[in-house]
Amino acid sequence: MHTVSAAEKIILNHALDLGWEEVPLGETLGRILREDLVADRDFPPFDRVTMDGIAIQHEEFAQGRRSFAIAGVQAAGSPQQQLSDPTGCIEVMTGAMLPVGTDTVIQYEQLKIENGKATLLAESVNFRQNIHFKGIDRKAQDRIVAKGKKMGPAEIATAATVGKSVLRVSRLPRTAIVSTGDELVGVDETPLPHQIRSSNAFAIQALLQEQYGVKSKLFHYPDTREAIQAGLSEIFDSFDLVVLSGAVSEGKYDFVPQILQTLGVEKCFHKVSQRPGKPFWFGALAGKAVIFALPGNPVSAFMCACRYLLPFLSHSLAESRRGPEMAMLMEKVTFNPALTYFLPVRLESGTEGVLQAYPLPGHGSGDLANLNDADGFLELPLDQDVFLPASVFPLHRYRF
Amino acid sequence: MHTVSAAEKIILNHALDLGWEEVPLGETLGRILREDLVADRDFPPFDRVTMDGIAIQHEEFAQGRRSFAIAGVQAAGSPQQQLSDPTGCIEVMTGAMLPVGTDTVIQYEQLKIENGKATLLAESVNFRQNIHFKGIDRKAQDRIVAKGKKMGPAEIATAATVGKSVLRVSRLPRTAIVSTGDELVGVDETPLPHQIRSSNAFAIQALLQEQYGVKSKLFHYPDTREAIQAGLSEIFDSFDLVVLSGAVSEGKYDFVPQILQTLGVEKCFHKVSQRPGKPFWFGALAGKAVIFALPGNPVSAFMCACRYLLPFLSHSLAESRRGPEMAMLMEKVTFNPALTYFLPVRLESGTEGVLQAYPLPGHGSGDLANLNDADGFLELPLDQDVFLPASVFPLHRYRF
Repeated sequence: MHTVSAAEKIILNHALDLGWEEVPLGETLGRILREDLVADRDFPPFDRVTMDGIAIQHEEFAQGRRSFAIAGVQAAGSPQQQLSDPTGCIEVMTGAMLPVGTDTVIQYEQLKIENGKATLLAESVNFRQNIHFKGIDRKAQDRIVAKGKKMGPAEIATAATVGKSVLRVSRLPRTAIVSTGDELVGVDETPLPHQIRSSNAFAIQALLQEQYGVKSKLFHYPDTREAIQAGLSEIFDSFDLVVLSGAVSEGKYDFVPQILQTLGVEKCFHKVSQRPGKPFWFGALAGKAVIFALPGNPVSAFMCACRYLLPFLSHSLAESRRGPEMAMLMEKVTFNPALTYFLPVRLESGTEGVLQAYPLPGHGSGDLANLNDADGFLELPLDQDVFLPASVFPLHRYRF
Repeated sequence: MHTVSAAEKIILNHALDLGWEEVPLGETLGRILREDLVADRDFPPFDRVTMDGIAIQHEEFAQGRRSFAIAGVQAAGSPQQQLSDPTGCIEVMTGAMLPVGTDTVIQYEQLKIENGKATLLAESVNFRQNIHFKGIDRKAQDRIVAKGKKMGPAEIATAATVGKSVLRVSRLPRTAIVSTGDELVGVDETPLPHQIRSSNAFAIQALLQEQYGVKSKLFHYPDTREAIQAGLSEIFDSFDLVVLSGAVSEGKYDFVPQILQTLGVEKCFHKVSQRPGKPFWFGALAGKAVIFALPGNPVSAFMCACRYLLPFLSHSLAESRRGPEMAMLMEKVTFNPALTYFLPVRLESGTEGVLQAYPLPGHGSGDLANLNDADGFLELPLDQDVFLPASVFPLHRYRF
């Protein structure tokens, strides 16, 4: 049996090399950038006016001038003008180029404009005020966004600004999600008393789509060796990532580990010292696919997807990730088995800036309903039995 | 000039009533639920075996029996069996119905199976162990997920389990994002020295899509009264939500507020005591559309979208939201103007469970590049000038 960290290490060592593809800017939201976004010119590209008002030479103000003849208007989006007579001024608009021969901008709120003259109402005018100077944010050729970043609104706006209408992003894995189990029927079917509707595949599919935009394909096979083997052997030809749930434990119909090995999948580990999710099986088909065979219980399958599958994807997509999120346990928890306990928790942002985790243990690995009330799993280490309030642990969050 | 909270209140009072629509389950990720998800039967629907092993009558164990003749196998997905001879047992698989006449499950790890008999290796067997009892999680007709929730992986799995292949979710607003400004050129164009490429519309579009799945349409008009007025008057006929950026300030070409009023849009406020984003204009066209006219500077426009547009959408979609997120300021900040200061911050999850906010003030409202390094805005109140390390403020986060 592997520890959680040993299992994680093995999984990350099997990260896929998915390469990259070019995608139109409008479709890059949530994708992982595979090239740096570089300033095509200085940011800002010219001395940019930041207030509507007038541009003057500060020296004139310093020498006592308080009234300036308006020599013209410099609009945003118009070619740069020039103030020829330093005793005058040019009206300037936010976003405009600062006219040649001026160095300071005074906003309208501090002026009276009358008869072609701008007269100062304020007492102080700072040299070079209200100008966003060329290159102060970034210089041409500076890296603005490093590859590995997930594309969000700011990155998309930046790509637009530097003229990238097509971006290189990590290719997504072709992903199959396979459920097994004769007890499972479809969403539109009415289960018999001994049956339930399928749900794991939907949860995992939604998680992968939400976090990384992965669109996965769902498969279901009945609990027979033949059906599972035939189905999987076909899947391995056309998918990079195969996520199974169910039939990985000790039961008479838990054919999955055996079938995977028959199909040439190298077993990396079977069983992790954790609750839920102990029967988790992980393997790889050299050069073809990586296989997560998750336990069939809904909380186990979902927890394993959050704890192992998401970091695996992050690595495979060459995402630069930040450190783990930490949360403070708010109530005492006792857990005796020598297993890492992934405790479902409800999160609250406390007035002290602390991310508070309230235990929602639920009724075990079958308690799907409980996942709706929880926001994530707190990872309580296996070498401890009693977890005191105000202690802090890593959090695996699935709701933000 | 309105305060931030006054502006927010007015905006929320203008929330749209968008109604609902029915959407196939597979397309509901990120949508706001408009009906309760109710248990169609008990959760779990039967006494469900949680370990592979055997089911017995505990009374037999209590009276000293340690070996049980195997009378059959109860697989998951098979109709319920019955243990007729209480001295025997039935092999049971995870997910199966507990057989009639049994009340306790012993896992294989604690058994030796030989010659049709299961012999106990463990010393203790708890009455009713390893059974997930019918109805213990939720009773039939219990509400599992309340309307107003954003659909995530757990909610999607739950909907699947209760047989909802189509869900009632909030209709999304038909959204137009309009940019104005002669200084703006398209992503694929090469700007002249006095021009820049458009970016605000992309940032806002991505934000709305990411947070609420809103797919908005982009428009751009040159800085002439005629072009803006003609464009907007057409837009108002077919959009619920119109977000403009630029031309709302004091400049000579800042026609937007005047045009909006000409077109019959009621001005709710113009200017908010905040930095960035002071010239923010907000209004409504009765029974037709709500108009956010944001300042044109990229940080201003984006901050206003995060701070005002997202809560507005949340309200309009009838989302049940949690309280504000709080973060701890990690460095001293001084800000004298009598304005609420939305400080860009980089976030870190501290080992103490504290969400730490490191100031990244950047170079003002034009510093788009800085938004890539920041994760959100810390809202520093206007009645304070000095903000000390370790003090806690509301956070408006755009990166998770």
